[in-house]
This record gives sequence, structure tokens and C-alpha cells, in this order.
Amino acid sequence: MKYISLLGATGSIGDQTLDVLRAHPEMFKLSAMSAGRNLEKAESIIREFKPELAAVISKEDASTLQNNCGSSTKIVYGSEGLREVAAFHKSDILVNAVMGSVGLLPTLEAIKEGKQIALANKETLVTAGHIVMEAAKKSGVSILPVDSEHSAIFQCLNGEDKKEAERLILTASGGSFRDRTREELKDVTVTEALNHPNWSMGAKITIDSATMMNKGLEVIEAHWLFSFDYTKIDVILHKESIIHSMVEFKDTSVIAHLGQPDMRVPIQYALSYPKRLEHSGGRRLNLWETGKLHFQEMDFSRFRCLEFAYEAGKTGGTMPAVLNAANEAAVEAFLQGQISFLQIEDLIHETMQAHSPVAHPALEALQEADRWARGFAVSLLNKGR
Amino acid sequence: MKYISLLGATGSIGDQTLDVLRAHPEMFKLSAMSAGRNLEKAESIIREFKPELAAVISKEDASTLQNNCGSSTKIVYGSEGLREVAAFHKSDILVNAVMGSVGLLPTLEAIKEGKQIALANKETLVTAGHIVMEAAKKSGVSILPVDSEHSAIFQCLNGEDKKEAERLILTASGGSFRDRTREELKDVTVTEALNHPNWSMGAKITIDSATMMNKGLEVIEAHWLFSFDYTKIDVILHKESIIHSMVEFKDTSVIAHLGQPDMRVPIQYALSYPKRLEHSGGRRLNLWETGKLHFQEMDFSRFRCLEFAYEAGKTGGTMPAVLNAANEAAVEAFLQGQISFLQIEDLIHETMQAHSPVAHPALEALQEADRWARGFAVSLLNKGR
Repeated sequence: MKYISLLGATGSIGDQTLDVLRAHPEMFKLSAMSAGRNLEKAESIIREFKPELAAVISKEDASTLQNNCGSSTKIVYGSEGLREVAAFHKSDILVNAVMGSVGLLPTLEAIKEGKQIALANKETLVTAGHIVMEAAKKSGVSILPVDSEHSAIFQCLNGEDKKEAERLILTASGGSFRDRTREELKDVTVTEALNHPNWSMGAKITIDSATMMNKGLEVIEAHWLFSFDYTKIDVILHKESIIHSMVEFKDTSVIAHLGQPDMRVPIQYALSYPKRLEHSGGRRLNLWETGKLHFQEMDFSRFRCLEFAYEAGKTGGTMPAVLNAANEAAVEAFLQGQISFLQIEDLIHETMQAHSPVAHPALEALQEADRWARGFAVSLLNKGR
Repeated sequence: MKYISLLGATGSIGDQTLDVLRAHPEMFKLSAMSAGRNLEKAESIIREFKPELAAVISKEDASTLQNNCGSSTKIVYGSEGLREVAAFHKSDILVNAVMGSVGLLPTLEAIKEGKQIALANKETLVTAGHIVMEAAKKSGVSILPVDSEHSAIFQCLNGEDKKEAERLILTASGGSFRDRTREELKDVTVTEALNHPNWSMGAKITIDSATMMNKGLEVIEAHWLFSFDYTKIDVILHKESIIHSMVEFKDTSVIAHLGQPDMRVPIQYALSYPKRLEHSGGRRLNLWETGKLHFQEMDFSRFRCLEFAYEAGKTGGTMPAVLNAANEAAVEAFLQGQISFLQIEDLIHETMQAHSPVAHPALEALQEADRWARGFAVSLLNKGR
């Protein structure tokens, strides 16, 4: 039995993680969890899975939930609560599925406690990859990717000598607007942007898919997860999302991971690794049903955010944290109707331009860069966009 | 340094094996070889690679070659010569790239001597899989596939637990006539049949590709190489031959091997395994250059030979040997202009129908079945086709 701490239980990845737990009650037990603002859902999860510990955002929510759920689950709150859940003494694995840079500290806490990390929170590695990977190495902890692309690469490297791999090839569906020109992107609405063709995901990540920033963050994550230089990480457009990613080896062999778009597969793999378990609710892949798979070279002038991400990754230091913070601020502003879709890019670009990166930043410097970038992006917004 | 015995040095796989040896002189040394009727080519290989031992077909050829090449290479001949090459005491690996059932005995001889086997000779496993795999197990010898499809599957299983694999999916290009209906196959010529769209191979195997018998033999080989039941081996039409084959696991994950059609890749992998070496002469795969990959469900009524092969494999015993022998006779007759393309299928089918299979046959029973099938097929030919 593996005991699981799940951060972000009420989100999209949280939902699907709970599905995996439901399918394999003999293998996995939810011992601790965190929830966001959806108290009703949190309560229903607590009633179903009976974790010993649960964290919510505020003190008020905590006492409401404690009253409703009874005393068999201890309810904590705030960032201290998140950390308690991450480091819960009975858990073997932390599934980190919260969104945003709030995911970083709990991950470090869990690493320190020697827990295996199943990582769905992109920002952890994007902003602080150097700190997280160093800490994981020191504690002998493995970081298992939950993203379908990184899980694919991780699986393609199974049994292989990483030194013989020449190139990681991430596939990108192209998001909601893959068939539109930049001209056609000027007036797209939030509703259109939220309509992803292949994957059902949260709002922030769906917008990040449409801007290709999602793939950019994945490139930076891949750099840290697999220790590959940015020149050895490629992105290819593949609209069906059937090939989840690939690894090219020095003998020109390419190993790929394919499957139906179903996040439960990489989530389950991160939990069951090195074993594979049945995925009885999953659809098998018969390629003749799909008929054709399409591939296109990535156009960096069409998808500027991808270029920004490579640039931030190569610059390193605080720059990826600034990229990420500016992007969070910009996407939020777009979702609120404050800026247009293409202005997301401008906001990120201008913020990066204005930043003087600090090399090898410690946590404090990263947090400072994050705050600065958000503040700067908001100041740009207030300048009357 | 790995020392190589190469059976079939003057053939198509032989050529490409020598290319691999040329590219990695620091890794591989040709210590023994066999050649067919092309003495001139044999001589040139001997001059270039200076093996200690070489086998040809006849005594006359042996003395001609011995005179021409000098005494540093010992020239032997006949089936005894083949066996000597296969079991040469200095060799670590036998690359078996001869065509036809003549490949079986030397393989068994090499296994007995504890040599690793790089197997390109399909008939070895098709006709005597039960004997070969049992012998390999007993000697602790690994059989490494050289075929691109089996090498692909072998690589997809790297680092995986075979018990967690649910299905092997072999890809088939469809051969020279993939876009023709059965009606359109009636009057095809030998020249048309020899024009394979993706791979440059020998005549027999190119015809086998067009009839889909090649894939059928590969299904039987896969059954023995990987110990998979026939119900867990699928074939899918994929005309670009970019995905070389796939393995589906119980969590619905599919791992695939992709690459340019280039036999040197699987040959090199069989020699370098478990390492991968540079393939500097190889073309890298960039899927955007291909643009689209196509897949189609296999139609067993269009490709009857594939159905025969599944049937022979499931029947087992002497039936696969009969399938193979009848096919060799039929393809030979087609290449000689004695029968039409579609009559290849009829000849095989009628021979299989007439055969009473023997279960668990020893070598003698297999050889007897092989002789019987050839005789029977020829008698059908003589009945005035």
C-alpha cells in the first residue's frame, strides 16, 4: 500500500488522481490532502476517502469543514497547512497538483522528508529547478512527472542510458487556436480560448496551451527533470496529441509514448512506478481508428511565448521565475477581460525585457523576482491598456 | 572488441552488417563469414575485412577463393562450412543473415557454443522456434532480432516488465502492391512486385512483403522471440514504415520505435546491445518532414498469406515449417514465371490443407515436413499450372 498526500485535490489533476485511487484501493490510500475554495467538493472527498489530514486556504474554511466532517480528519489551513499535508508523516508520495508558484515550498518540504514526488505543478521546476533537483539529489528522492509529455519522456528513457539520448522531442497540440494566424488571434474571446481540442484541463493551463506558454514551461521542466541542454529539446506540432513525446538516441532510433489523451495514465504511472497497473476505465489505442497523425514544424514567430520560454530557460537564474510570474499575471488579466489574447505575449515580453536576472538565486531572490514581475506586469496593465 | 561470425555476407543484410562493422572498427571485428554464389564479392569482402575463416557453397568455389585470397583466410565449404563459421571459436556473436531454412542448423550450432545470436534469418524461428528458444534458454544465450520490427519491439520492451505488456503491434508497409485490390493483382509482373516502396531488400523478402507473408513470418517470429500468444500480436498497415512496431501495456500506454527505414539501425543495435552507438551515416527523423503518418486496419481477406501464417502459428507443430517451405517454393515459381502472383497464395493454402501436422516435432520431423511441403508444392506446379 502506498500512502498519498495530494495537494490540489479539488482541481482537474486532483479529480483524476482520485479516480486512480478509486480504481486501485488495494494499492493506494489518500492520507492527506489540500483543497482550494471549493469547500463542498473538499467535504465530499473527505467523506469518501477519509484522509487523516486536510488543508484549506483560510482559518474560517478550516473550522467550517472541521464542523461538517467530524474529528477523524484533522483540518489545517494556509501555507503552513499545505506544508503539513506535503510532509505528512504517514505519506510515501506527494502528488503536487496545485497551480502556481505556491506549489514550490511544500515540494521542498516533502523532499526534505524523503517523500517521492509526483509533480504536476509546473512552477516548482520552472522557477526553482536548480534548488529542487539539488534537494532531491541530496535526499535521494525521485521526482516523477505527471504531465503527459514528461511522463512520456520518462517512459521512453526506461531501461536506456540517458547519455545515449540525443534529443527530447515534446509534442504540442497547438491548443485552441492552432489553425489560426496571428491576425486571426487579435479578437479571440476568453470562451474560445478555453475550448481546448484534446484535453480537458483547468482554465490557466488551457490558456497557456493556446499561447504555447504551456509547452514553453514544459521545455524548462524537461531541462531540469532530465538534465538536458535546451539545444537538445525540440518541440513539434502534433495536433492529435496521440504521440505524447519522444526521445531520439544517438543511433537515430526514436522511442515514443503513445496513447489516448487521458491524464489518468501519467498520474497512475507516477504512483505505480516502476510497475504498471491496469487502467480499466481507459480506452485502448488503435491507430487505424485515428487513421492519420499530423506533424508540423514549430513556428516560433507564430508562438512567441515558446520563444520567450527558451530564452528564459537559457538565461536561467531568476528569468524563468519572471517569465512564469508575468505569464500568471497576464493570463489572469486576460481571463478578467483586462487585456486581449495577444497582449498576454506583450506583457510577458516587456516584463522580461525590464528584468535584470540574478544568477543562482536562492529561494528569497526567486520570491523577490516573482513579486517584482507581478508588480511590474500589473503596473503595465494600469498604464491604461 | 566483439568478434563476429557473419552468415550471408554477400546478401543485402550482409552488406549492411559490413557497413556497421566499417563504421565501428574499434568495436567490431569480422572473424568468420559465409558467402553464396557471388565469389567476386566474397573475395572483395575477404580482402577488406581479413576474416580468419570463410565458407562458400561448393568445393570448387572454395579452392578458387583460397587461390585468390591467400592463406591468411581459411576457406571451407558446404553445410559443414556454414556450421564451422557459425561456431568459430573466436567469435562472440553470430549474425545469421542467410536466407531460407538452411539458416537453422548453424544457429543451433552457435547456440550450443554459447554465442550470442543476431538473427536476420526468419526461417530459424518460424520453422523451429520451439527447438531454438529451448536451446537458447539452456545455453543462456540471447537471441537478438535484426528485423526492424522485432528490434523495435525488443527496444520498446527495454526496462519494462514483459508481463505488463498486453499486445505487440507490428507495422506493415503493405509492400509493393499495398494500394491495389485483389482484382488488380491478377496480372502483376515480377518486376512490379520487386519494387518495394520503402525498403531495399533481397528478391524473396520483397515478394514476401507484397504477399504480406513477410509479416506473417514476423508474427510467428514475434511469438517465439517474446513468448506472446498469437491473440496478443496485432498487425497494422502503416505505409510510411516510420513507426517500426509498438508494444501496448496494461495501463493503455503504447511505446513505439520510430526511425527512417534503415536496416543498419537494427543490425547495429543487435551488435551493440545493450549499448547504443553513433550511426553517423544515418538520417535523423524529423516528423515534420514526413508531415503525416497513415494507419489502416489489416484486411485479412486482402492479404490471405497473413491469415495463413496466423493459422500455421496457432496450429503449431510442423505447420509453420510447411507454410514456410510452400512459400519458398511458390515464390521461387513466381520469380521463375511459372505461376502468377495470386497463385502464390493458392499454392501455400493447398499445401497447408494437405498437411497433417505433427506436434512437438524434432529436427528430423521438421526437415521431413519441409521436404514434403516442397515436393507437394512442386507436384501442384507440375499438374499443369
